Parts: sequence; C-alpha cells; structure tokens
Amino acid sequence: MTDEMDRRIITLLNQDGRAAYKDIAARLDVSEGTIRNRINRLLEDGRLRVMGAIDPDLAPSKQLVLLGIRIACSKDLSKKAEEIARLDGVLALHLTTGRFDILAELWLDAKVGLIQFLGQTLAQIDGIVSTESFLAMKSFNKWIPQSDL
Amino acid sequence: MTDEMDRRIITLLNQDGRAAYKDIAARLDVSEGTIRNRINRLLEDGRLRVMGAIDPDLAPSKQLVLLGIRIACSKDLSKKAEEIARLDGVLALHLTTGRFDILAELWLDAKVGLIQFLGQTLAQIDGIVSTESFLAMKSFNKWIPQSDL
Amino acid sequence: MTDEMDRRIITLLNQDGRAAYKDIAARLDVSEGTIRNRINRLLEDGRLRVMGAIDPDLAPSKQLVLLGIRIACSKDLSKKAEEIARLDGVLALHLTTGRFDILAELWLDAKVGLIQFLGQTLAQIDGIVSTESFLAMKSFNKWIPQSDL
Amino acid sequence: MTDEMDRRIITLLNQDGRAAYKDIAARLDVSEGTIRNRINRLLEDGRLRVMGAIDPDLAPSKQLVLLGIRIACSKDLSKKAEEIARLDGVLALHLTTGRFDILAELWLDAKVGLIQFLGQTLAQIDGIVSTESFLAMKSFNKWIPQSDL
Amino acid sequence: MTDEMDRRIITLLNQDGRAAYKDIAARLDVSEGTIRNRINRLLEDGRLRVMGAIDPDLAPSKQLVLLGIRIACSKDLSKKAEEIARLDGVLALHLTTGRFDILAELWLDAKVGLIQFLGQTLAQIDGIVSTESFLAMKSFNKWIPQSDL
Amino acid sequence: MTDEMDRRIITLLNQDGRAAYKDIAARLDVSEGTIRNRINRLLEDGRLRVMGAIDPDLAPSKQLVLLGIRIACSKDLSKKAEEIARLDGVLALHLTTGRFDILAELWLDAKVGLIQFLGQTLAQIDGIVSTESFLAMKSFNKWIPQSDL
Amino acid sequence: MTDEMDRRIITLLNQDGRAAYKDIAARLDVSEGTIRNRINRLLEDGRLRVMGAIDPDLAPSKQLVLLGIRIACSKDLSKKAEEIARLDGVLALHLTTGRFDILAELWLDAKVGLIQFLGQTLAQIDGIVSTESFLAMKSFNKWIPQSDL
Amino acid sequence: MTDEMDRRIITLLNQDGRAAYKDIAARLDVSEGTIRNRINRLLEDGRLRVMGAIDPDLAPSKQLVLLGIRIACSKDLSKKAEEIARLDGVLALHLTTGRFDILAELWLDAKVGLIQFLGQTLAQIDGIVSTESFLAMKSFNKWIPQSDL
Repeated sequence: MTDEMDRRIITLLNQDGRAAYKDIAARLDVSEGTIRNRINRLLEDGRLRVMGAIDPDLAPSKQLVLLGIRIACSKDLSKKAEEIARLDGVLALHLTTGRFDILAELWLDAKVGLIQFLGQTLAQIDGIVSTESFLAMKSFNKWIPQSDL
Repeated sequence: MTDEMDRRIITLLNQDGRAAYKDIAARLDVSEGTIRNRINRLLEDGRLRVMGAIDPDLAPSKQLVLLGIRIACSKDLSKKAEEIARLDGVLALHLTTGRFDILAELWLDAKVGLIQFLGQTLAQIDGIVSTESFLAMKSFNKWIPQSDL
Repeated sequence: MTDEMDRRIITLLNQDGRAAYKDIAARLDVSEGTIRNRINRLLEDGRLRVMGAIDPDLAPSKQLVLLGIRIACSKDLSKKAEEIARLDGVLALHLTTGRFDILAELWLDAKVGLIQFLGQTLAQIDGIVSTESFLAMKSFNKWIPQSDL
Repeated sequence: MTDEMDRRIITLLNQDGRAAYKDIAARLDVSEGTIRNRINRLLEDGRLRVMGAIDPDLAPSKQLVLLGIRIACSKDLSKKAEEIARLDGVLALHLTTGRFDILAELWLDAKVGLIQFLGQTLAQIDGIVSTESFLAMKSFNKWIPQSDL
Repeated sequence: MTDEMDRRIITLLNQDGRAAYKDIAARLDVSEGTIRNRINRLLEDGRLRVMGAIDPDLAPSKQLVLLGIRIACSKDLSKKAEEIARLDGVLALHLTTGRFDILAELWLDAKVGLIQFLGQTLAQIDGIVSTESFLAMKSFNKWIPQSDL
Repeated sequence: MTDEMDRRIITLLNQDGRAAYKDIAARLDVSEGTIRNRINRLLEDGRLRVMGAIDPDLAPSKQLVLLGIRIACSKDLSKKAEEIARLDGVLALHLTTGRFDILAELWLDAKVGLIQFLGQTLAQIDGIVSTESFLAMKSFNKWIPQSDL
Repeated sequence: MTDEMDRRIITLLNQDGRAAYKDIAARLDVSEGTIRNRINRLLEDGRLRVMGAIDPDLAPSKQLVLLGIRIACSKDLSKKAEEIARLDGVLALHLTTGRFDILAELWLDAKVGLIQFLGQTLAQIDGIVSTESFLAMKSFNKWIPQSDL
Repeated sequence: MTDEMDRRIITLLNQDGRAAYKDIAARLDVSEGTIRNRINRLLEDGRLRVMGAIDPDLAPSKQLVLLGIRIACSKDLSKKAEEIARLDGVLALHLTTGRFDILAELWLDAKVGLIQFLGQTLAQIDGIVSTESFLAMKSFNKWIPQSDL
C-alpha cells in the first residue's frame, strides 16, 4: 500500500530524482534508512520509476510523433498493444477511447524515421487498419527517457 | 555541447535515475568527480532531467487523457500553447501537425476531472475552437511525474 | 449505503417494476415491511427509479434521435448541459469524451421534429458550435419513459 | 390498440412505476380492475415495460459508454445487430443513420471494462470494421436498468 | 386525396410526361376528360409536376455539384434553407440528418462556377459555418430541369 | 446538335412539361410540326426527358435519403456504379469527388426502408467499404419521378 | 492561340528547359529564329514558364508542407486566396473542392517553420477558420522553384 | 556540395530558366565557363532541374487534382509510393504525415479523367484502402511540366 509518506517521497523525487537520501530524510523528518528502504520498495514494486530524460526540442536529429492507430477488431487487442509497445521507436502506448484504438508516442529519426517505422517496423504487426500521425513541432514539459541529445 | 560520454551517462540514468555516481563512474571507467560534474552541468543546462514517476495504471483515482485542441488562428499560437501548458492538470503539451493544433497530455481526477478541466480550467483561455478527448484506458511504458498512487 | 439486499431488490425490480412487495419479500426471504421500507428509501434517495416505458419501435409518430453537440469552450459547460437537458424533447443527456462534447437522446415527432428541435428549441441555447444527428431506425432493448404509443 | 386511457396510465407509470392500482384508478376515475387489466395487457403485449433503474452517476464502479460501430456491408445487418444487442454489457442498441451503422449503449466496469468489451466480447462478432467510443462522464436524466449501486 | 387512379396516372407520366390524354385514358380505361381533370387538379395542388429535363453528362459547359453546408445554430434554420434554395444555381435543397445541416444540389458553370457560387452567391447568406463540395463527375438516371445542352 | 431553338423549347418544357405543341409553337413563332419534330428528336436522342414527378414532402410513407458510398478501389468503378444505379430504390447516382466515391439518391419506405436497402439490396453488391446516410427531413424544389403520394 | 508546334516546343522544354534554341529547331525541323520567337511569345503571354527547381528531399534545412485551409464563407474568397498566395513561404495555392477551401503548398524552415507560418505569417489574414497540415516526408518527382540546397 | 555560388545560380534560374549563360555570369561576376560547368554539374547530380511548365488554369481540357490516398499498412510503403508515382497522370507524389499516407498531384483529362484514373490506372495497384480527391478549381503560382495548353 502506498501511504502519505510514500507520496511525499515521490513528490520530492518528481522534482529532483537525484535528491540524496539524507536530504529527503531531512525534508520529511524521518531517518535516512527509512527513506532508502521505502524508495527501494517502491522501485521494486514498480510503483516508482526514477529516470533520466531529455527535452525533445534539444534533439534535432530526432522527432517526437504521436500516432493514432486503428486495429481490426479482434480477440487480441491487449496482446497487439503489447506487441506494438515493444517495437523499436515506441516510447509509450495507450489504449484509448474515441476515434483511435491506440495512441502511441514515437521517438524517431527526423525526416525518414516515420516512413521507416510505418513501412518496416509497424508493418510486421498485422491487423493494422489505418494510422494517422501527428508530429510534435514543439513540446512543453515533455521529457523523453532517451539520450539522443 | 553534448558528447558521447554525456550520452552514455544519460543512457544509464534513463534506466536507473537513482544510480550512484560511483557506479556510473565504474561503468564508464572515469572518476566519480567527472560523473558528478557532468550530471550537474547537464541538469543545470536543462539538457537532462531526472525525475521520479509513477505508472498511471496504478493510480485508480486519476485518469490520463490526451486532448486534441484546435485554436483560432491568431498571432499568438506559441503564447497560447505556453498558457495552456501552465494550466493545472497539464502534464505536457505539443504543437502538432495534422488535424489538431495542440495535443496535450492531462493528468486529471477520474470521472469528473475532464469536465472540470474543460469547463473551468481550459475555459479561462480564449480562442479555443474545439477539443477532442482520448482517455487512456491502459498505458504501456508510460510514467507520470506525479505522486497520486 | 446500498447493500447486497438493496441490490437484490433492484435486480428484481429491473425485471418487473410492478412486482408486489410480498412477492419480492418471499423471493428474498425477508418481511414485506422491510422490502417496502427499503424500496421507499431507495426511491427517496434517488438511488432507484421505477418507471413505465415504451418500445420506441411501436411509436410510429415519434422518432428517437441521438444528437452529438459541440459547444463553444466556456466556463459553463455543466450549466449548458443542464439547460439542454431541460429542453422539450430531450430524454437524457451525456457529457462525453471524444468527438462531441454532449450526446443527447431526443424523442421527437417523426419527420419534422428534428428540424423544429434544431431550429427552435435548441436555438434558444447560445454557444452551440455544431450538431450531428443519428436517427435510430430500429432499436433493441430500448425503453422510453413516455406514453406516445 | 392503444387508446387515450392506456396513454394516461402509461404517463402516470412514467412518473411512478410503483403507483398502486387503486391510486391510478382514482386519478383516472375508473375502477381498479380496469387499471389492473389494462396494465397487464400492455405488459403482456410488450407495449409497456415497468422497470427499476439506477442513476449511472451513483455507480462509481461502472461506466456508461456509447459506442459507434461500423460493420461490413452484408446481408445480415439486422441479425448482426441482434447478436450484438445480446452481448454482455450491452444495455440497448440502435441501427442509426449517419456516420455509424450502430450506436450501442454499454454498461461496463470502470477503467478496464471497455478494453474487455472490445477485445473479448465484441471480438466474437465478425464483420466489425471499426468502433468509436464516447464515455459518458456525467449524465442527466439517464436511468440504467441494472443494480450496480 | 390522392387515390389509386391518381397514382396510376402519375406512374404513366413518370415514364412519359408527354403522353397524350387519350392514350392515358385508354391505358386506364376511363374517359379522356377524367384524365384531363385529374392531371389538372394534381398539377394545381402541387401534388404533380411534369417537367422537361436534361442529362447532366450531356451539358459539358455545366457542372452538377452536391454541397454539404453547416450553418450556425439559430432560430431560423428553415428560413435560411429557403433563402439558400432561392439562390441562383441551386436546383434543390435538403435539410438533412447527419454531418451536414443542408445538402444542396447545384447546377453551375464548369470550372469557375463553384468558386463564384461560394465566394459571391452563397456569401450573401450569413451564418454559413462551413461547406464541403462533391462534384458529380458522372451521373446515372439524373435529370436536370434546365436547358443548358 | 442542340441549337438555340431546342434550348428554348426545353426551357418551356422545364416549366410546363404538359404544354401543348401548338402553345409552344406560338410562343416560339414556328409551326407546330417543327415543335413536334424537334421534341420527338430530343426525346429519342436522350437529350430531353419529360417526366411526371412528385414533391417528396407530400409522400409521408416514403423517405428521401442521400447515401455516401465508399467502394474498394477496383478496376470496375463505373460498372459498380451502374449496378448500384439499377438497384430498387435508387433514384439517381453520382460518381463524386471528395470524401465519398458515390453519392446515391434513394427513395425508400419510411422507417425500415433504409435498413432493408443497406442490409438486403445494397448487400448484393460486393466491394462496398462503408456507407454514410443523410436523411432529407425537408426538401425544397425537389421532384421525385415516382407515384407514392 | 497555342498550336501543335507550340505544344511540341513546350514538351521539349518540359524535359530540358536549358535546351539550346538551335537543338529545339533541329528536333522540330524549323528555323532557330522561329523557335526563339515562339518561346519568347509563350513566355511573354504567361503560357510558358521555364524555371530552375530543386528536389525537396535534397534540402534538409527545409520542409515541404501541404496545408488544408478552411476560411469563413465571405464575399472575398478569391481575394483571400490571392492574399495567402502572396505570403512568404507559399509556393503555390489551390482553391479546391471537398473538405478544404484551399490547399496550399508551403516551403518552410524545417522544425519551426510551420509554427511560425501558422502563428505569424498566416495569422495576418483574418477569416481563417481552421487549418490541417500534411508534412511531405518524402517526395517523388517534385521540383521546388527555390535554391535552398 | 552546393555552395553559395550554386545557390545564386539556382535563384537566377528559378526566375528565368532560359537565362543565357553569359547573362548569369555577368550578374554573378564570374566567367561564362564557370557558370556553364556549374549548371551542368547541378543538372547531372539531380540537384537542379530546369523545366518548361504551363499554368494549369490555361489548359481547359485538363484538370489538376490532389488525391489523398490511404494504403493498407504493409512492408512496402515506399515501393507502393514509387509504383503510384510512375502511373500515367501522376505529376508528383508525397508520403505525408496526418490523415492520408500519400498525397498525389494528378494532371488528368477534365471531367472523366479522374474516374478513369481511379477505376483503371490506380486500380492496378493493390492495397489501396481509400482515396479522397480535391479538384483544383483555380490555382495560384502553380506550374505544370506538361504541354496541354
């Protein structure tokens, strides 16, 4: 169970993922060991991830793309989504309500990356009915867990 | 300038943002001081952010929403985008090509959060022509820099 | 609080809203007074409604219409929705995610009812950006709380 | 044939489906036996249903969804519609004019219910070309003949 | 009231609007005077129109266009429709369900006629939100009551 | 070749398809024989049709529907169109530019006619990808060459 | 008037705009003076343009964008189009049938050029209702009359 | 490598593709031989094309059409695009982001050219899911490398 203390730790890590255990401990007025234990348990349980990330607008050789995907109605919607989520270039993926079945966040080579993704990478998955791409020309507060600066 | 060493540091932090300076140093075969200096400079320059983040599927009281926004053509497209990016509940925002002018990532209270966002928060910004929402029912590899577990 | 007994009562009323108190009592093995009290409290609290309803396909002079509505972004989304919900001919109304802001269920005179609704009734509400109508040509399991047989 | 007396009975039952036979009789100035006979005949003929129903906004574990469905043009449009109408989670279904072939009203578990419906329940029906979902975030005057309070 | 005899007369005129009164009379086994009287009454009542018409594909200087129109929601939907129906170039006009409020059939000069219609003729009507044009490249069984061969 | 005299004859027949040969002759100041010959030649060549037609708004048992059709890209676009044009209920059909491949004008039984057309009549034609229907709720200056008053 | 000889000259210039007058003359078996005169007259009349152009895929700092534009219905559709056609970055512009009023071909700085065009350049023109952008990721046989290699 | 001198040459050729070598040389203050060599190398490398072109609005027998194409997701997106680019009537073709996979520029016979292109020419390519056409009714600054004046 995540309690109030966990939430306060996570909030501090949201702002500074590199914060030292002892500084977090001082802020929350508990022992450093407690902080260390709790963070480790949160990380092990998958309830927390601390990740280095870059600003997409500072990576000129890369392109952030949001891709709406419609897939043929089938018994394996979640399995399909998992397969697509594992493809090279897919940062994150959402099963969504509305006009698309899936909205994927892609991190691709500028210019030709999307053609390659659609024509080669995604083409391995069958049952894709149609796609619609949205290129992020400029992003605000977006952080990409990649190192392509 | 970001060099190969910086990129290797960022790659290690992508995977584990809490990695100790000395472990990174050992992996890259340089001194701990070098790693510490480089990480600090990357953070100061805004080229790197290390952030604690949670899995949206583990936060049942919250809802991740992608919101397509069309705004009236005007001289202040970028300024509008900045204003919207600062609104409560907006995680990230993209100026996009295609059918929408803006795609925003929202982190809202489940059920009524989107109504409140559209009817109160976003309604403060004039010039919004229309919106179209996509609720993330399930996400893969998505990490939210918030603490609402 | 709604408990398991309440739910079992509601389930029986789902199937037969006219079921006698004593029959429900016999089915659930409690006293008739208990059933009567519980039903009355559910009704008073607005947690239950028992309503007579007709099959729309048996009312040839009437037309069931689903109407998607987009309204201008404004501070009074919920208030607008309430106003529209009170209009003559509106059976029910939903604030929805996706392509429309509102989906309304309308019960109108066949042929000219929709023209009158759009051109007179709905036209009283300002801020309607666009509408898109879907006429129900045939319905399954739909029950309308009206008496236009 | 439904006559004026039938319609007046139905109107009273619209407002209060639990109204006692003798109260209806008093209101319409006829004998209780006449009311009882007429209501029974209306129910038997399928011209009237009296049903207990709940307010969807009071059932936090459930989600009302409107689902637009396009099905491949085929000789069995009505049969398909009937099959879909019988699926678990489908409250009502309409063959509609316009952009969709079918609009279905779904009552599903909050969060994962729609994924399960699309990926498992609806996936049993072949010939579905595409779907577009609209989640009801808030409903006005909507009553669901279920007991999930 | 239109009776079976009227309908049989109209059916014959559907096929051959120039059919002689006496030939129609012979076909229907009544007197020529009866036919003449009935046709005149149908024409006077507006229940029948007999019109000369041409095949649009034989008029190369003209273009048949179907135009979807969305108009701002307003109290005068029918009046607007009437105004548009009277514009030069409008053959017929329909208030429609679905994505458009109005679908108009236009008969315009090839090439520049549609630009002139949109930019000059229709521009006189205010409250037009958007239009979407469909040019008929080839028509089957379409007859235009004009003389531009 | 259609000349100015032909066009003047057609214009008179546009307004009154039953105009007597001698009246047309008087109006155009030529002999009745010339008028008769020219009209017969225009009719024989398919350059003119004179047809009795009714106002769709006066035929309550019937429904005018405009149907957008997308068909799978194939070598027989024109042949497909011809097949559809010959189906029961199809008044006229257009191969169109834009969002649809075909726009058909349908004259169907009110209420269930469209379901039957889509599910039975049109379902005989393979290669139909999707359809979108627009019901004419009210028409201006539309004349239907049928007799269903 | 453009005659067959003119057309043959233009065809040769299509393939090689730098072809020497005497080579064209030899190919068409007329005198060099005739060729020179005819080309000059074609150029002066605006019936021919000979232009140097580059392959957009070889200009990495630039981006070819097709932009669909909807403009508010107004008396100055053609004037608006002319104004937009004169804007910096607009290569060519088309008044089109269908979903957009205008389709413009833009030649912009990669990455931020489209944001600047929408937010600054196009924003000077009032009456723009909405835009939808299509980025050319790769082009075949497209030649841009610019020099940004 | 394209240098500043090359760019200045191309700029002059943009405006006048027939400019004499010696005039370009004089403008740029270098020898005629240099200009001749550089232009030849640019042409040979495919970095420059000089082409005669006509104004589409002066070719009444022809029609410029922009065609959006969606193709089934497959391993040969680029190959498909190349095949379509080689079809008769295709001037240029773009792999695009957004709602379409491909936007093609077509130069077709007026009236029936598009039907023939869709039903015969394009129908040879399999995997085309849908098309949407936009006819250019009037173009600004558009030059077509064809000779159909």
